[in-house]
Amino acid sequence: MAVYTAVPAEALERFLVRYETGALISAKGIAEGVSNSNFLVETTTARFILTLYERRIDTVELPFFVALMEHLADAGLPVPRPIRDRAGQALQSVQGKSACLIEYLPGVSVTQPTPAQARAAGEALARLHVAAADFAPTRTNGLGRPWWQATAAELGTELDRIAPGLATRIADRLAAVCATWPEGLPRGTIHADLFPDNVLMLGSEVTGLIDFYFACTDIVAYDLAVLHAAWAFPPDGSAPLPAHEAALFQGYEAVRPLSAAERAAFPILGQGAALRFLLSRAQDWLAPHADAPAAMVQRKDPLPFARRLDHYARLA
Amino acid sequence: MAVYTAVPAEALERFLVRYETGALISAKGIAEGVSNSNFLVETTTARFILTLYERRIDTVELPFFVALMEHLADAGLPVPRPIRDRAGQALQSVQGKSACLIEYLPGVSVTQPTPAQARAAGEALARLHVAAADFAPTRTNGLGRPWWQATAAELGTELDRIAPGLATRIADRLAAVCATWPEGLPRGTIHADLFPDNVLMLGSEVTGLIDFYFACTDIVAYDLAVLHAAWAFPPDGSAPLPAHEAALFQGYEAVRPLSAAERAAFPILGQGAALRFLLSRAQDWLAPHADAPAAMVQRKDPLPFARRLDHYARLA
Repeated sequence: MAVYTAVPAEALERFLVRYETGALISAKGIAEGVSNSNFLVETTTARFILTLYERRIDTVELPFFVALMEHLADAGLPVPRPIRDRAGQALQSVQGKSACLIEYLPGVSVTQPTPAQARAAGEALARLHVAAADFAPTRTNGLGRPWWQATAAELGTELDRIAPGLATRIADRLAAVCATWPEGLPRGTIHADLFPDNVLMLGSEVTGLIDFYFACTDIVAYDLAVLHAAWAFPPDGSAPLPAHEAALFQGYEAVRPLSAAERAAFPILGQGAALRFLLSRAQDWLAPHADAPAAMVQRKDPLPFARRLDHYARLA
Repeated sequence: MAVYTAVPAEALERFLVRYETGALISAKGIAEGVSNSNFLVETTTARFILTLYERRIDTVELPFFVALMEHLADAGLPVPRPIRDRAGQALQSVQGKSACLIEYLPGVSVTQPTPAQARAAGEALARLHVAAADFAPTRTNGLGRPWWQATAAELGTELDRIAPGLATRIADRLAAVCATWPEGLPRGTIHADLFPDNVLMLGSEVTGLIDFYFACTDIVAYDLAVLHAAWAFPPDGSAPLPAHEAALFQGYEAVRPLSAAERAAFPILGQGAALRFLLSRAQDWLAPHADAPAAMVQRKDPLPFARRLDHYARLA
């Protein structure tokens, strides 16, 4: 929700000389991303997003994200393409920060998806999984099971400050999920965070899949569980919306049908997805990042994900 | 430096139906303005800035600002035109805030103007003064002499926390400036805040004059003194840059030559301009706005304006 690093117009003009993008016409810092500073940059030839990587991202991992975005864009997915400079470099340094100039895509992020939009998101995620099948680089999911366990242990009974009994509820579900985690399911490159704010749409058409900075190598059907948790519930997380749920699966399976094992594992995968977002939100709620002014990080209520956790547990 | 009010894409789509602007294609919250939330909105026909008025602005005054921007745009100045809806209304309500959809203009704000850019800014300000001569509405300068006196009294010896002796320096200059303030000089509508960040440029061409929310009715040559304080000094405010200073006056006088009385009053007007920005920066420095999270308001060093004050005092 902020721009952490100022980029003077003069510095931006000098930076753009590296590229075949034409001259600078306009640049606006945009209020997107907690981990990055982003600028909407217009030149005489096109528009771009300039991202400066600020926090939470290990710059050693940036080549993975850049290669993945390029791979998916090459495959025809609506993924913003990292722009290479005249020397072929995509990753740069701007104002002392790692940075990347990225293709600008049209579309808006919806807040309350319709079933048709959920269907389109499901289809887009399946296309992403299919297109990523021949993407060779791998990356460990930094917010996978070991992180859930470490974070639940670290927060401990502090979790009860969010809701009485939450610590025990989480510990119980975590034990059950880890005991039955479907290790054998197909693995691949997943987005791992495809919430509506990371999908650009025009009407019910997906025009952009963005924010790949949680992408990693993990169980492919887990990504569908994340999508389900993100798109198929009302904001309070109370119970899934049947039309959204059906549309989302239909969209996904139109491109990549689920195996019986993947379908059977869905209640466990859903609990995993709910735990991942419940725990990261609980962490932000209880201890806003020391490195980010609290006012700049929008705290999101963890409890709607506790309700999703309950829902998936009831299915298991 | 922030977006205070979220505007869901669905709400924005409904809002745009009021206008003949076409359908929504993209919307990004932009990190500009401390008092407003701003969104860069693209539709099928054009781009716009949507401004939500958040703080520091009395909404009763919004019609003045809107009428002034429209008057100046009508006169052919590069001023963003407020867009009227199908019913002819420019001022709206969005998410419970007063709001205005405004023309988008290309250009970037320079950080370190060149003399050629200072000349262009001088010329643009003079064109603004000439074009505003037949603008009838008036508005008291809320940051004029009564405000300087009240603020210096309110901050008192707290000012010495910024620099030892600053309270006395300010009180002395304030007394001298108020005793000799050139009341009789021509008055008119002034921008009152035409710093480089409120001017959009492409090269040395002015493509936009923006942020009219301090505009008011005051001594016209005072606006040139503000421009001089803003464009003709290095960042530390130590001593004016001769080439910038000459270019700025040349640009201005090419359109609106100064009278002998205006020229003679320049050292007093310059001290007034320095006091206005010294005091507002001192106020922000000593007591960040209670209504804005401190981290969101970029505190600017007041001392470069104390140095400008000394400079203008030496000329008097």
